[in-house]
Amino acid sequence: MKALRVNKGSLSLDTIGVPDAGAEALIRVTASGICNTDLEIVRGYSGFAGTIGHEFVGVVESCGDEGLIGKRVVGEINAGCGSCPLCQAGDPRHCPARTVLGILGRDGCHAEFTTLPARNLFEVPAEISDTEAVFVEPLAAAAGIAEQVAEEPGTRVAVIGDGKLGLLCAMTMRLSADKVSIVGRHSEKLRIAEAAGVEPLFEKDAANLEKCYDVVVEASGSASGFSAAARMVRPRGTIVLKSTFHGSPEWPAAQIVVDEITVVGSRCGRFRPAIELLGSRKVDVLPLVSEEMPLDDGIRAFRRASEKGVLKVVLRMHR
Amino acid sequence: MKALRVNKGSLSLDTIGVPDAGAEALIRVTASGICNTDLEIVRGYSGFAGTIGHEFVGVVESCGDEGLIGKRVVGEINAGCGSCPLCQAGDPRHCPARTVLGILGRDGCHAEFTTLPARNLFEVPAEISDTEAVFVEPLAAAAGIAEQVAEEPGTRVAVIGDGKLGLLCAMTMRLSADKVSIVGRHSEKLRIAEAAGVEPLFEKDAANLEKCYDVVVEASGSASGFSAAARMVRPRGTIVLKSTFHGSPEWPAAQIVVDEITVVGSRCGRFRPAIELLGSRKVDVLPLVSEEMPLDDGIRAFRRASEKGVLKVVLRMHR
Repeated sequence: MKALRVNKGSLSLDTIGVPDAGAEALIRVTASGICNTDLEIVRGYSGFAGTIGHEFVGVVESCGDEGLIGKRVVGEINAGCGSCPLCQAGDPRHCPARTVLGILGRDGCHAEFTTLPARNLFEVPAEISDTEAVFVEPLAAAAGIAEQVAEEPGTRVAVIGDGKLGLLCAMTMRLSADKVSIVGRHSEKLRIAEAAGVEPLFEKDAANLEKCYDVVVEASGSASGFSAAARMVRPRGTIVLKSTFHGSPEWPAAQIVVDEITVVGSRCGRFRPAIELLGSRKVDVLPLVSEEMPLDDGIRAFRRASEKGVLKVVLRMHR
Repeated sequence: MKALRVNKGSLSLDTIGVPDAGAEALIRVTASGICNTDLEIVRGYSGFAGTIGHEFVGVVESCGDEGLIGKRVVGEINAGCGSCPLCQAGDPRHCPARTVLGILGRDGCHAEFTTLPARNLFEVPAEISDTEAVFVEPLAAAAGIAEQVAEEPGTRVAVIGDGKLGLLCAMTMRLSADKVSIVGRHSEKLRIAEAAGVEPLFEKDAANLEKCYDVVVEASGSASGFSAAARMVRPRGTIVLKSTFHGSPEWPAAQIVVDEITVVGSRCGRFRPAIELLGSRKVDVLPLVSEEMPLDDGIRAFRRASEKGVLKVVLRMHR
């Protein structure tokens, strides 16, 4: 099969054997999405080597649970040991022995086939298209904020960053909060959020906003984004760190203490609420698709995904 | 009157006029406590100039509210504007126009007299001694953690730092959590916590503890203390930042996101719960008193308070 593989910061389209699923499910991938984390892995952000990709929809080819065979599925990306207290409680996202699809110790899904434990799979209802289903993983990450931070209609929310993740965060938080602003640099991206009822703000327009938001979501992954979040959050407010930062950035620890700010790290979310959001049409992710390309053009697709102004690039595996 | 005054990082015992209380209460100070924040102010940490000190007990000399005259009181240190939404909601701790006793824009209490708005004052029950009453402010700061972070009997708590604030945090958190550890360097300080049912740990003994505490309170104010907290907290656990850090220290932002850790800045607490803790003898603060000295020896008392191994130094104003 063909697979997009990374090794020491170099990406290649290789022909390799179909993976041996062992006790897991073998999935024929239909489509996959290129995420910023993929781009960072190719840049050498982690030591990962192997097939990359963690956003996908596919059809189960073989599986110990025969009821799943032939089903169209998406899959939670953290595969836990199954026996530690966290796994036993149904949440393998922080299992210390976990592998993570295309990110940590496990080949990913920018390939014709991928494998995951059957318990990680969720059937996709017919009303959700393949392209939409590719968004279940990042949408789950965005919707996961609600699991960690209380939102009410009156909660004033700002999202820093108008990339894919920032847009999904703003759009999902707008479902529970009446006033959500997004701070970005690209008018065409801000317009996507605006169509979902989010107030668009250019960075320069937000520069004078101080201590006026209850919750600020940092989704730019930049030190300047965190500074903006710290400036905009009210005393006793919450900053949600949604993007991974590189290295050890500085932070205004004294302000965090004096203003009694809460900083919440937030990574993966649960799939079921995200599937429900897509199925009920509460969030429209299609405006975030910049291009669909075949897996054969995978190298070019990665270049395209890293261009300025481009949002989601979707790979199609089979013609 | 005599007052300990700081100006550009220099401390002096000056003779100045009794302050004009205006619409506020004038309090004849009985005793005051030297806090680490005082030592940092003298080191030039903030731009504060004037009478320092914010932990005190005293007797109301004059006041618009005549019922308070002659009463023995302690006082919340944040004086709000009284009209902003935060003040109207009864919490002036984050009023943007606030002054803070002996810290920000308001003369403090290492003096024979001090002033505060009557609404900041709390009468001290007879069963609480003057020396104990000096601890109401720092004890309120320690007990305030419970207002921000949920604790249950099974919550595993670690406190980093065996200074005054660390000890008070460990002792108060032990009232609601069965397993509280304190990490420090001084056996005699650790013993005070141990007597209150807290597990004492030397830094070297804690060096191998990883991801095993639900809540870690950073009360050392050092970058190494924050590193230890980040190492010891479990995924999805909470770090409470209780000490002000100087400058902009580095922090492991990537770990905060990947492990979905919550960092809670925590500063001042409410006085009433602290008064109740002292009155009901649930927390014994007297082992934390290293020395009591007259105000006349204030300069020497500050030197003493900054010596290694010394905990609280209490000043007595009137012989």
